[in-house]
Amino acid sequence: MLAMPTAPIDPVWLRRAADYQATLTMPPGALGRLLDLASQLCAIQETLKPCSEPAAVVIMAADHGIAAEGVSAYPQDVTGQMVRNFLSGGAAINVLARRSGARLLVVDLGVKNRAAFADALPHADFIEDLSVAAGTANFLHGPAMSEEQLQRALTAGRQVGAQVAAQGVRVVVLGEMGIGNTTSASALTAAVLALPAARVTGHGTGVSAEGLSHKIAVIDSALGRHFGMKREQVAPLAALAAVGGFEIAGLVGLALEAAMRRLVIVLDGFISSTAGLLAARLEPATRDYLVASHGGVEVGHRIVLDTLGLTPLFQLGFRLGEGSGGAMALTMLHSAADLMRDMATFRSAGVSEQ
Amino acid sequence: MLAMPTAPIDPVWLRRAADYQATLTMPPGALGRLLDLASQLCAIQETLKPCSEPAAVVIMAADHGIAAEGVSAYPQDVTGQMVRNFLSGGAAINVLARRSGARLLVVDLGVKNRAAFADALPHADFIEDLSVAAGTANFLHGPAMSEEQLQRALTAGRQVGAQVAAQGVRVVVLGEMGIGNTTSASALTAAVLALPAARVTGHGTGVSAEGLSHKIAVIDSALGRHFGMKREQVAPLAALAAVGGFEIAGLVGLALEAAMRRLVIVLDGFISSTAGLLAARLEPATRDYLVASHGGVEVGHRIVLDTLGLTPLFQLGFRLGEGSGGAMALTMLHSAADLMRDMATFRSAGVSEQ
Repeated sequence: MLAMPTAPIDPVWLRRAADYQATLTMPPGALGRLLDLASQLCAIQETLKPCSEPAAVVIMAADHGIAAEGVSAYPQDVTGQMVRNFLSGGAAINVLARRSGARLLVVDLGVKNRAAFADALPHADFIEDLSVAAGTANFLHGPAMSEEQLQRALTAGRQVGAQVAAQGVRVVVLGEMGIGNTTSASALTAAVLALPAARVTGHGTGVSAEGLSHKIAVIDSALGRHFGMKREQVAPLAALAAVGGFEIAGLVGLALEAAMRRLVIVLDGFISSTAGLLAARLEPATRDYLVASHGGVEVGHRIVLDTLGLTPLFQLGFRLGEGSGGAMALTMLHSAADLMRDMATFRSAGVSEQ
Repeated sequence: MLAMPTAPIDPVWLRRAADYQATLTMPPGALGRLLDLASQLCAIQETLKPCSEPAAVVIMAADHGIAAEGVSAYPQDVTGQMVRNFLSGGAAINVLARRSGARLLVVDLGVKNRAAFADALPHADFIEDLSVAAGTANFLHGPAMSEEQLQRALTAGRQVGAQVAAQGVRVVVLGEMGIGNTTSASALTAAVLALPAARVTGHGTGVSAEGLSHKIAVIDSALGRHFGMKREQVAPLAALAAVGGFEIAGLVGLALEAAMRRLVIVLDGFISSTAGLLAARLEPATRDYLVASHGGVEVGHRIVLDTLGLTPLFQLGFRLGEGSGGAMALTMLHSAADLMRDMATFRSAGVSEQ
């Protein structure tokens, strides 16, 4: 894949969009942040009639060696079982994506328990030949992945981005599945922002208070091992190789490629948003293409979104991943595009202005 | 119309819904408030497989005599012009309702400038024979409406509720249009909660800082005239007759009838939520059927929702009315119902539990 530089959005389009919004039959700014979202769409697509369809939720799935340290409330086999559930149409993201009219694409970047979905009858698009390995190595004892594995995962993500763009997709939701991956996301965030693990580590999908202390200790220990006790901000690729996950690296590649191709990128929860942060650290203009969907309950999520300067569209206490919050935000994006395309102006509707 | 008592929801159904949610393939409670919303739907419909479709946005429109006091940024003719815009399909609510698959029903409860929409070609359902009068009287100088007019407006709202229920509608959004109606809503809220006008009065659709001071002075003066300087909490019907609007009284009737018939009622902004509050004061069990969609920027809105004990699903800085925030919330309601109906259980999907 040939990576071209990503162009930042042109603020002229933000101003043009706002000027046009002022002619629509509503008081100035009366739809608040929905109008800001519409302006962002206009600037990304360089048009006053943006298009948010088709949208796709991409779930990248992989296993994590760090799960051996007991950092998750669920056994590792659940990653593969949930991939089967995605393919069978029974997971929350299937229901939420269907409601918002989004396609669902599941990508195996490194699931260990592949037997779980070997005989699944796909109700979703599925890419299984990009798997890097049967899970990362346990990053408490060494690097999560080799340099070569990291490049393969990034390239796989770029390939998926190129593929959905070629299919005409305009909006992509970054979804993920991987038992243990909040531990990896916390370690990545702590590494690139030079923060102690306790600042960016939460309960994930449900570890206990005792489990949380253990999780923090594991991350701090791993970070000390990889980057020394007095660590500074770690570069994104070094962090990914040391404590990342194949699905997270895949999402970074997907975000980089999607922004390069001027797609709108919807972040979901902590893990997905961490991938967005890493992509923006690698290619700063990527930031202009990101939309934060929900504010999760995971403490690191807020720090990642703050660092990116993004405010989530809603906060409903989600802590699921899968792209669930991103899928819920799609109707807001579609509505934002619809307003630009379909509303009457004061002049066309014969309505008096202020 | 024969008004029957409204039954409160049975908490047994909330527990049954939560128990069933714990069997679905996600960590316990992982979809946060979406699951609470699903439980409320289950309890309202007394089923574990709730149905949120079809949904309807009902916009009640009427004019306000208080507009003569210069309390709005827009001329009074805009009420009729916007009704024409709703009927022609060019308003924000047309776009938002279409996106969420909701029907749109416009009801003229007392629009003055009926000529504005006399020749409109309806793109939405329209009821024009329930108009009580060509706007309320100026409540700075006397009651907004007579007792008889109030009863007609309430009954009209009940009729609309009975009609949409007969059409099979399961969820109704309370929408409104009426130049000057945030002034009426502030006066109603101040009256029934015994608060000074300044506590519950905001910029509406866009009056200036100076305009806001004037608006507050007008409301305080009117409240003093109607209820004396040392007023206590005013009864809902007395407040409506004194400082209400035909469309607000209509929404109160609609909410009362909808709750009696076990429909889900989605509140929109300040005016819509004030109607919900008045309905709940008249018939307390109505509260169980209410869903708060968005938290508006209008200061009184927050006080009304707090009084009702409702937390909005999102806050995007809307200050439009029309049912716009309510329409945006419909996808969340539909998603909540879908999760109960369509998700796989741990057992059915063969996924390991904690």
